[in-house]
Formats: sequence, structure tokens, C-alpha cells
Amino acid sequence: MTGARIDRADHVRGDADRLAAALGDRRARLLLLDALDPVVEDGLLGWTSLGLIDDGAEPLFLGLLDDIPHFAPLPADVSRIDGRSRSAWAALTLLAADEAALYASARSLVAWHASYRFCANCGSGTVIAKGGWQRDCDGCGAQHFPRTDPVVIMLARHGDANGVERVLVGHGVGFPSGRMSALAGFVEPGESIEEAVRRELFEEAGVVAETVEYIASQPWPFASSLMIGCLAEVADPTLTLDTKEVDAAIWVTREEVAAALAGEEGARFLAPPPIAIARTLLETWLG
Amino acid sequence: MTGARIDRADHVRGDADRLAAALGDRRARLLLLDALDPVVEDGLLGWTSLGLIDDGAEPLFLGLLDDIPHFAPLPADVSRIDGRSRSAWAALTLLAADEAALYASARSLVAWHASYRFCANCGSGTVIAKGGWQRDCDGCGAQHFPRTDPVVIMLARHGDANGVERVLVGHGVGFPSGRMSALAGFVEPGESIEEAVRRELFEEAGVVAETVEYIASQPWPFASSLMIGCLAEVADPTLTLDTKEVDAAIWVTREEVAAALAGEEGARFLAPPPIAIARTLLETWLG
Ligand SMILES: [Zn+2]
Ligand SMILES: [Zn+2]
Repeated sequence: MTGARIDRADHVRGDADRLAAALGDRRARLLLLDALDPVVEDGLLGWTSLGLIDDGAEPLFLGLLDDIPHFAPLPADVSRIDGRSRSAWAALTLLAADEAALYASARSLVAWHASYRFCANCGSGTVIAKGGWQRDCDGCGAQHFPRTDPVVIMLARHGDANGVERVLVGHGVGFPSGRMSALAGFVEPGESIEEAVRRELFEEAGVVAETVEYIASQPWPFASSLMIGCLAEVADPTLTLDTKEVDAAIWVTREEVAAALAGEEGARFLAPPPIAIARTLLETWLG
Repeated sequence: MTGARIDRADHVRGDADRLAAALGDRRARLLLLDALDPVVEDGLLGWTSLGLIDDGAEPLFLGLLDDIPHFAPLPADVSRIDGRSRSAWAALTLLAADEAALYASARSLVAWHASYRFCANCGSGTVIAKGGWQRDCDGCGAQHFPRTDPVVIMLARHGDANGVERVLVGHGVGFPSGRMSALAGFVEPGESIEEAVRRELFEEAGVVAETVEYIASQPWPFASSLMIGCLAEVADPTLTLDTKEVDAAIWVTREEVAAALAGEEGARFLAPPPIAIARTLLETWLG
């Protein structure tokens, strides 16, 4: 879910004249959304003309694509907007990576506006600023910015006495039956990435990471996370699960991971889908 | 600013009985804060007994240190709390890395509570939950979590035709005179770390990153950021500065970086302080 081709055009957001020109551009396009879900046709996001925006909806500036301004609509009635709803998962798997990334950005932004209509500092109403990349408070004057939550997602690895290496996959509470993935958790204030990986592995699985290696990152729009993927070396594979978070976890071999990624019928677990960074971690470990 | 020894003890936060026991523990300690600034003595954070907390102040659970509960105070009057104030910089340089990390966590948490007394979703009041790691809305029931903003900070590197490598340091608007550092910016919704590095380098300096390599991360408590440090290879060193953000930038050699890190009088720029991850990036590049 990376590689969006759009130019976020920060210089347009903060410039009232340029923003007005973008809004007045007859070529300007508006993302089609059903609540927060995309309207996908032939693997592409659906768009319409900005002029066809619903009454009362506000356009959020996504950026320039082939020099054409692109917007997402913030509806007047936000009651159907739920940033945590995962009904878009199926649609996401139909999109190419760059389209999924552009959708992720739009979805997170719309969901943030819908849930940030009031000032957390004073309780007054807030209004859109900078083309949708800021909200300003009517009361205390505070400026608020779209939120992005850093999340660590990590594959613990362990080599046994015979030199066989395994990685740890877990079944999160609420996962589909059989699905296993890398463990994950939010980075807290005051932590580094590496510290958050160590804390989460210990909290959720009771294992101690000796080393932590960064692998890759991607956005995740449920609601608005930055997924930071790591591998972590573990010396003692004994598990103590926090079953409120992870109700099952197993150490799996390269052969078992390969079978799961290939979707084989006899595979020991169901692998995460291609849009999930956990899959990238499994593929990277396989080499 | 990493290596805090404290156990965040997530199992205590969410358990009313355990949290009550921690609050009632006669050994429990309370961080001394002057507004948001630490009280440093002999390189150590100052603490007092939890029993001496000010009337109306609320204790936020930081975790267990040597099995003793540690708290930070959220004052009844938050008017002096300003998460962006940098008056703690000087005190921070006096602290060892693990003490600075513990302070960073406490500071970010207190500042978040002070600025999140109202629900962004409905404008009602919010109250502390989970020992200080959550706020619950009285009105709509929304749960709110402490915010951590991911920030990319990157050193662009360029090798010239003679094989001489240089890195890019810039003077941010508002920096002390002569101070130069790595460029930085917030990760936006819908971006990966690598995409944010490329966007910020292009926006601020007009250079195109060919490759991006993750190096290290650390928390930064002004107000509550996760600094993600990277090196980025640049083929064309021509600069086009966004002078609203960076009013000067120069490519510097290994010798010039070494002189700046050593604090030499004739150095071409003033290096960032040891608590800044930009310094780690410069040191890593020097090897
Ligand atoms: Zn306000
Ligand atoms: Zn509410």
C-alpha cells in the first residue's frame, strides 16, 4: 500500500489563491466514496467531477495527479463515517498498490475530519483549514493536524539447537479463523521503535527480543496508522500469551510459511493478505 | 533519549484493583515537575512521595521501576502546560539517556492530558482512564489515546565525481544562529517512512532521493514525536530551498562534520546536541 503517484503539493494547501484556483479548475476530480468505502471498477478508484460534490459536503485537497487537482469529500452528515470499519478490506485487495495508497490517504483524512469536529483543548467547534490538512479552533485558536499513529509489527525469529529457524505468528482476538500474522501494537509516547517492539513482544507473547531490525513500512488506513515492520531475534522461544490480545501463537518453519503464503490446502495457518505488511515480513524472512 | 528502565506495566493500567494498589503503595513516587520542566539534581530526575501530590492534581501511572509504582502529576490548573515549550532542553542535556527517556514519556503524557480535556468527536468533557493512558468521553463514549506523531529526519548524502561524499545539513527557521541539522518533517496519513523522506527532501531542499535507509529512532517530547532517522542517497545535489522552513543549507564533507561534532572553533556549523537523533545520523555516516 505504497507508491501513490499523487503530488501532495504542500505549496497549494497553504496558499489561498492557489487553493481557490484548484477548487475552480474545471478538470478537478472528486473521489467517489460510499461512507468510507471506495468505489472500485477494473482495479481503479472511481472519481467524478468536483462540480458534482453533494450539497454541504466539503472538498479535502489530496494533491495533484498529472497536474489535475484531486479531492475527497467530507460529507455534511458524518454519522456513517467510522474510521475503524473494515468493510473496505475486500475492495482494497482489488486495487493496485498505488491506488490503494491514494485511497488510504483519502480515507484516513476523511475519517480524521469526521472525528475531529471539536477542539480537544477547549471543546469549541473546529473548521477546515489548509485545504483539509489542518483544523482551526473557533474558541482558543488551537491548530490541529491529521493524526497518524505509529504501530510496530514484528516477526520474532528463533534458531533452535539444530540450526532450524522459525518465526512466531499469532491469532489476534477477532481475526478470521485460522489466520495468523505478525504481532503488533501502538508505539507509546517516550518509546523508540525498537523499545516498542521489545515491549509488545514481551507483553503479548512473553518473549525477550535480543536484537530488532527494521525491514519496511506502510500506511494502514484503519483508522490512520503508520505500520513499521521489524524482525526480532529471540533466544528463548517459550511463550506466555496475553490471551486478551492473542489467543493462539505458534513457531513456524520456512516450509510452513512457504505453504501458507502459497495458500496450500494443508498449510498450518492462513497467511495475511498481500495488502498487509505482515506478508512482506514473512516474504522477507523467507528470502 | 532511549533506554528507560521503567516497566510500563500495561497489566496494571487496565486492572482497577492493581491500579488502586499502586496508588495506595506507600513507596509510590511522584515525578517533580515545574510546569512541564524536570527538576534535575546530579543528573537525575527529582521525585517525591505520591502522598505529597498537590490538591486537585491527578496521578498518571508511568510504570514500575524496581517494582515501585512511579507517577507523574497532571495539575488541576493546566494553563502553564505548553507541550511545545522548549525550556526543558537545557535540563535534558544534564540527564543520562535512560532518565531523559523516562522524562520524555512523562512529559508527553502530561502535555497530552492538558490539551485533551474535551472530546474531539462531540465536544463533551473527557476523564482520565487506564491510569492515564486513555481518556473517555462523558458524552458520546469515545475512547481517546495519547498521541504520538511520527516524524522523519534524514541526512541526504551525495558522492561527487571525485568520489568525495557529502551530507546535507540545514538551518531551520527559528534555530539558534549557526546550528545546522538534518532536515525533518511529519509523516502524513497514507505515507510510508520512505515516501515521507522523499517528499520532505524534495519539498524543503528540492533534491530527489534515490534510496532511503532506516538508521535509528528515538522519542522527542516536544510535544510527542517519534523521530525516525534515515540516510537518503541523492544523485543531483542542486538545492532549491523552501525558505519558509529552511533558510540555509549546505553540503558538508566528513572533515567538516567531524570538526562540528568535536565543537571545534573553526567548524563550518554548530552540530546538534547529543540528545538529538540528528547527531546520531551524523555520527553513523562518519562511521
Ligand atoms: Zn479550542
Ligand atoms: Zn465525545
